[in-house]
Amino acid sequence: MENFVFYNPVKILFGKGQIANIASEIPADAKILITYGGGSIKANGVYDQVKSALAGRNVFEFGGIEPNPHLETLMKAVELIRKEGIDFLLAVGGGSVADGTKFIAAAVPFVGEPWDILAKGAPITAALPMGVVLTLPATGSEMNTSSVVTKWETQEKLFFSSPLVFPKFSVLDPETTFSLPPRQISNGIVDAFTHVMEQYLTYPVNAPLQDRMAESILKTLIKEGPKTLANPTDYDARANLVWSATMALNGLIAAGVPQDWTTHMIGHELTALHGMDHAQTLAVVLPSTLTIRRDRKSQKLLQYADRVWEIVGGSEDERIDAAITKTRDFFESVGVHTHLSDYGVGVETIPAVIENLEKHGMTALGENKDVNPQVVEKILALCA
Amino acid sequence: MENFVFYNPVKILFGKGQIANIASEIPADAKILITYGGGSIKANGVYDQVKSALAGRNVFEFGGIEPNPHLETLMKAVELIRKEGIDFLLAVGGGSVADGTKFIAAAVPFVGEPWDILAKGAPITAALPMGVVLTLPATGSEMNTSSVVTKWETQEKLFFSSPLVFPKFSVLDPETTFSLPPRQISNGIVDAFTHVMEQYLTYPVNAPLQDRMAESILKTLIKEGPKTLANPTDYDARANLVWSATMALNGLIAAGVPQDWTTHMIGHELTALHGMDHAQTLAVVLPSTLTIRRDRKSQKLLQYADRVWEIVGGSEDERIDAAITKTRDFFESVGVHTHLSDYGVGVETIPAVIENLEKHGMTALGENKDVNPQVVEKILALCA
Repeated sequence: MENFVFYNPVKILFGKGQIANIASEIPADAKILITYGGGSIKANGVYDQVKSALAGRNVFEFGGIEPNPHLETLMKAVELIRKEGIDFLLAVGGGSVADGTKFIAAAVPFVGEPWDILAKGAPITAALPMGVVLTLPATGSEMNTSSVVTKWETQEKLFFSSPLVFPKFSVLDPETTFSLPPRQISNGIVDAFTHVMEQYLTYPVNAPLQDRMAESILKTLIKEGPKTLANPTDYDARANLVWSATMALNGLIAAGVPQDWTTHMIGHELTALHGMDHAQTLAVVLPSTLTIRRDRKSQKLLQYADRVWEIVGGSEDERIDAAITKTRDFFESVGVHTHLSDYGVGVETIPAVIENLEKHGMTALGENKDVNPQVVEKILALCA
Repeated sequence: MENFVFYNPVKILFGKGQIANIASEIPADAKILITYGGGSIKANGVYDQVKSALAGRNVFEFGGIEPNPHLETLMKAVELIRKEGIDFLLAVGGGSVADGTKFIAAAVPFVGEPWDILAKGAPITAALPMGVVLTLPATGSEMNTSSVVTKWETQEKLFFSSPLVFPKFSVLDPETTFSLPPRQISNGIVDAFTHVMEQYLTYPVNAPLQDRMAESILKTLIKEGPKTLANPTDYDARANLVWSATMALNGLIAAGVPQDWTTHMIGHELTALHGMDHAQTLAVVLPSTLTIRRDRKSQKLLQYADRVWEIVGGSEDERIDAAITKTRDFFESVGVHTHLSDYGVGVETIPAVIENLEKHGMTALGENKDVNPQVVEKILALCA
């Protein structure tokens, strides 16, 4: 096992009716800004629950945060906050609203150009406190330090990470997700699954508890994902998806083990260039990454085949092939297609993806830092 | 799945050499009290590592905290702290030192008789900040809110729990545990295993991720426990035991599921009455609790038999029998005996145990609150 530091102070309020308990988690004299997206929270009752929980409190609102939240939009919130002296942020929505609000939290006290936090890794020394009411299980943003933001003007999708933007609390009420369109649930399943794979499917370091916990999440997603798609109001199935998605990226399964993230970094560029959903890019890229890196990842691929998919027969190569096929089939089975052509994207995009990765300094990806542009080209060629 | 709140802000510094990093986790102007036990930290080099990491800092010391830490001892530390104006506690030792230091942290600012915190559930509203340098993997105290203290004068062993006594940080360096006597490692394995069982072996609430994570810890303990006993300086095996013991009782696998704790409550009385090691009482009581409560716990016992012990043949009753036997055999195999007679304790102790449980208000134990004194009597009779 490798040395590690694990720290995650996010308070999780999980279950039916938990939105009613947020008031006591926010300082009584706070000037609160509720941030949200396209307005689905007004249709599904979440907005009313939040307003009711915060009755009598000093509340402002900022809506219109889009999927893959735009720097340009978020900076308008920063302006509002500075003008009004707002001092607590409450993100109500999915991963994009949570990520966007983390950026806002860091940008408000930042001296200089806030985009530098992502583009130049400019250090942040303060952030506004924030909470999250999660309405979409997928990204894990509700219990981690990361945020992904897109600069629309230049089509760049970048991330930053800081313990200063840990939410103080996150409410996860599975019932608030019942009304989501199936596409968003499908995406959430693939997103959570791939988060686990990026932290699990590398090389062994004799960390069996972390391995088994990662496999626990994968197996739960494989079993509960199709259930919650088939019956969106089955509370337990949805609750199990929600908790799995949070656990997939809260730092725990990453403690003491190597991490990959090749698939995510390539995927971000595909979203920035072609507007594909984040999870769609993952469903396309992950099977190809596993295939191209199969020699480097062979021991963990065999373990994955055995423990997650119960593949025991055949040669090592056959078992690895079968495990990768099972992964692709699982993504397809929950409704997320796994080839670029399914999204109208051709191999002619490859040079642009590589150029953008180079521009963002991502020329040595993966757990061994040896996924260079030549390897990325091979991965993408296989994604066609 | 049941509703839950999960919150655990303890920062874990895990691995070789991490003691060197504690200074930056403690305020620079703090008056620090190092608390420890019988002095083994002076023999194994941990004391020197801590002193070296805190060179130039304002450090006091308080040694002599015994196993099952005594109120009478701990109150001497409280007196010293009040006198010297100490404002940060650093527990260096195992679960007893950590538990004792949590009590000290709560007792210092407490107005009134501190034993009331345990004996009367008197609420605490403040506690000194503390850190832990763990030298014995077992109790999980390094990453939770609980503390067990014994009042020597009346032979009472009671517990309290408060988020105010979460350690700010805990250092887990597996190398610091290499010199422990085998008996303490054996006890640690049984303690961690039983902690998981108290949170897992109840009744199903459709929480498959929590179940699988609990099973992950059990399977890791079954595999790594004997390895680390056979080869105490195998770093990875010891590291896997240490991380398993912490994960067994940090709140995560308890989130959203029922809990039992019958075995622990009976065990505490056996330790108070007969001085048995904590883990010895668990190894004795757990198999009997599972046997007497087998009807209430049948669904989870069958799942445990299948997933943890790979018992698939035979009738349901036979599989449950086999799983309980496997549990007992595992405890024996790591060197902890499972009958009261092994410790020179006879069934004539039963009335005293029940009397003490009644005195402590523990007449409705277990996940269904139906383990009354009659059931406890049956469990203890089977422990002979």
